Amino acid sequence: MPAGRMPCIMDVPEDSHFPVENLPYGVFRPVAGGDARVGVAIGEHVLDLAALAEADLFDDTHLRGTNAFARASLNEFMNLGRPAWTATRNRIQALLTGDDPRLANDRELRARALHSMHEVELQLPVEIGDYTDFYSSKHHAFNVGTMFRGPEHALMPNYLHLPVAYHGRASSVIPSGVDVHRPRGQILPPGSDTPVFASCRLLDFELEMGFFVAGESELGRPVSVDRAADHIFGFVIVNDWSARDIQKWEYQPLGPFNAKNFATSISPWVVTLDALEPFRIDGPAQAPEPLPYLRARDHWTLDIRLDVRLQAEGMDAPQTIAETNFRHLYWTPSQQLAHHTITGCNLRTGDLIASGTISGPERRERGSMLELAWRGTEPIELGNGETRTFLNDGDTVIMTGYCAGDGYRVGFGDARGKVLPAVE
Amino acid sequence: MPAGRMPCIMDVPEDSHFPVENLPYGVFRPVAGGDARVGVAIGEHVLDLAALAEADLFDDTHLRGTNAFARASLNEFMNLGRPAWTATRNRIQALLTGDDPRLANDRELRARALHSMHEVELQLPVEIGDYTDFYSSKHHAFNVGTMFRGPEHALMPNYLHLPVAYHGRASSVIPSGVDVHRPRGQILPPGSDTPVFASCRLLDFELEMGFFVAGESELGRPVSVDRAADHIFGFVIVNDWSARDIQKWEYQPLGPFNAKNFATSISPWVVTLDALEPFRIDGPAQAPEPLPYLRARDHWTLDIRLDVRLQAEGMDAPQTIAETNFRHLYWTPSQQLAHHTITGCNLRTGDLIASGTISGPERRERGSMLELAWRGTEPIELGNGETRTFLNDGDTVIMTGYCAGDGYRVGFGDARGKVLPAVE
Repeated sequence: MPAGRMPCIMDVPEDSHFPVENLPYGVFRPVAGGDARVGVAIGEHVLDLAALAEADLFDDTHLRGTNAFARASLNEFMNLGRPAWTATRNRIQALLTGDDPRLANDRELRARALHSMHEVELQLPVEIGDYTDFYSSKHHAFNVGTMFRGPEHALMPNYLHLPVAYHGRASSVIPSGVDVHRPRGQILPPGSDTPVFASCRLLDFELEMGFFVAGESELGRPVSVDRAADHIFGFVIVNDWSARDIQKWEYQPLGPFNAKNFATSISPWVVTLDALEPFRIDGPAQAPEPLPYLRARDHWTLDIRLDVRLQAEGMDAPQTIAETNFRHLYWTPSQQLAHHTITGCNLRTGDLIASGTISGPERRERGSMLELAWRGTEPIELGNGETRTFLNDGDTVIMTGYCAGDGYRVGFGDARGKVLPAVE
Repeated sequence: MPAGRMPCIMDVPEDSHFPVENLPYGVFRPVAGGDARVGVAIGEHVLDLAALAEADLFDDTHLRGTNAFARASLNEFMNLGRPAWTATRNRIQALLTGDDPRLANDRELRARALHSMHEVELQLPVEIGDYTDFYSSKHHAFNVGTMFRGPEHALMPNYLHLPVAYHGRASSVIPSGVDVHRPRGQILPPGSDTPVFASCRLLDFELEMGFFVAGESELGRPVSVDRAADHIFGFVIVNDWSARDIQKWEYQPLGPFNAKNFATSISPWVVTLDALEPFRIDGPAQAPEPLPYLRARDHWTLDIRLDVRLQAEGMDAPQTIAETNFRHLYWTPSQQLAHHTITGCNLRTGDLIASGTISGPERRERGSMLELAWRGTEPIELGNGETRTFLNDGDTVIMTGYCAGDGYRVGFGDARGKVLPAVE
């Protein structure tokens, strides 16, 4: 565990997700007007990096000559590579601790560069190239497999040998706060062999995390598991909204399509691997031993506490319905990336790689309604007398997570979305 | 069938894919140097649209004020919408027939704007957003299903109700002429329950066509089957390279991943819907009748002759191994697009929507090696004494297609790629 909190020129509450130890990147637009640009979250504020760059505070770093922060996405900054990321992080940290006094002592610059969170609109932080969704939680795969095939055949024969994944839809990845219409589509009524066109009745969330890729890799050249972290810029929370009844009818033989491509929500702040470094832990035990291309010299994962809250219409506050941890995943981020490229698939800056639903071994650690309410057979209580097996119109789903430091949190903020009625 | 050939100021052979009736768009870079820009294929030449725009020949059209042709992709032009596409096509056709004499009479402009095909390098024509691959050929689905499950259970229960599709990988879509390394990955040896890491032994092509989407649609708002054509800019040939042994082991339960994401080749010229208009025909009979959102007032498809040629090392000329037609597809482009968006998925300019393997009812009309050689049991003859069940290193696969007009062809050029040995 790291030492106690660093000093900060800003007032940051102890339970804030955004102390000076974190410094996640996002893209914001001031509500008062102005172009979208890159910022860093600090406590209840957003530090405007374009304004700092304009004041020449990065001019002696790798950012000289670029305009990477005066952009509506992080892609240009991500393309600069890890030395630039680390130098930038060190500079921002020095400015915010006061080690470098140029921000602390410049009242006019502070007024220009620090916006209250309430005065900005957060956007998608990254222009996403391809979006891939893994299926890395053995607990999740086992739960779902048990429901549909029984516990003896719950895991497919490939599950313990390779990180199963599918390609997802990038266009419908949306930032936290954008609400989601209940989808309509083809559903096979129980006992029938003819589908109907109807509103989804089994609407679900999936609690996931994802990382953004930085740096291109060459087509035909796999990225080794030991070099994978070079391509990991940072992490966000992901809600992979899922229409279970549509999925059940459509997914054979090529996988989910309409059941997933209507919306995927992400948290707006990208927490860098540098910020997560103190929370790296040993990766999970894996038996059978994976093939050599999946064996890392440094087999690491992350200790990130995650939870899902649900707030139905009429409830005063959200109710926590699931609590789990990123460490429960069977396949690690480096293994995901090595496997993704093993046949030669090339990576591009901005690719989003999600983990799949993160379920743990306990009931409360299940990352989807399908599992929490066990396919509708064990309704969950919302505390206000209501129960749920799947999501109702008006329900707001709020996912969040943080790493617990010594007296501080490195957090991700929220991935939040409300279920709106189907569009007729 | 349309009337005979239009006149042209250029010499265009009768069997050319690119007469004045076609005018497909592409992106090229002169071998002699210069930036990538938009051009149109005419006979053995490329007409440089950026040069025409610079000479003010589009200044009275919808293109006024844009620089859409001085770009390394068609996306900006595609975003202008159908009125701009039609006006541009009409202008180019007038310039090339001589109806508008400003190109014919300007020797200097002709020298500047017309490049021999040998003097240009063709690039990916479109910056691809999301890539989706359908499974629209009932013959293909039936063939593959029969091999793996027998003819009684060949088609999944959903097949005749919805156009099955999966999301593919956009980063590894490559233009014709880029060669492809044989992929390596996890394969389950016959009779074993433990996978090995090995070079793919069952490397295949899939003959497909794809269309590029133009114009955004709103998240949460399906595009109706009757409005789908508004979003179809034009078509290309697609080779969906496939590693059958890797696919077999990995694809359960979420569909193909590594077996497909290592490369997808496309032909470089985008043939517009305007050029294909004379070759629209009635869509296929469909029983059972699809749900209302898939029923078009105008149920159309296209009459496009397609073939696959294979040239092994040492062969003097390629051998035709398959001949089929786009009309054999069960689900039409408009139905694909309506289904893609039915749960609310949004479209973006540059999305590539492929058809899936196009197989017809006859043996010679099968669009993959898997089907042509019936899972390795009926090797195909190459004419030089060699046979094939799947692709060997050094094999070049050439796919092409055209619509047969009255004395002319509206063609697509080639999607070509050679199999290189696996990278150790």
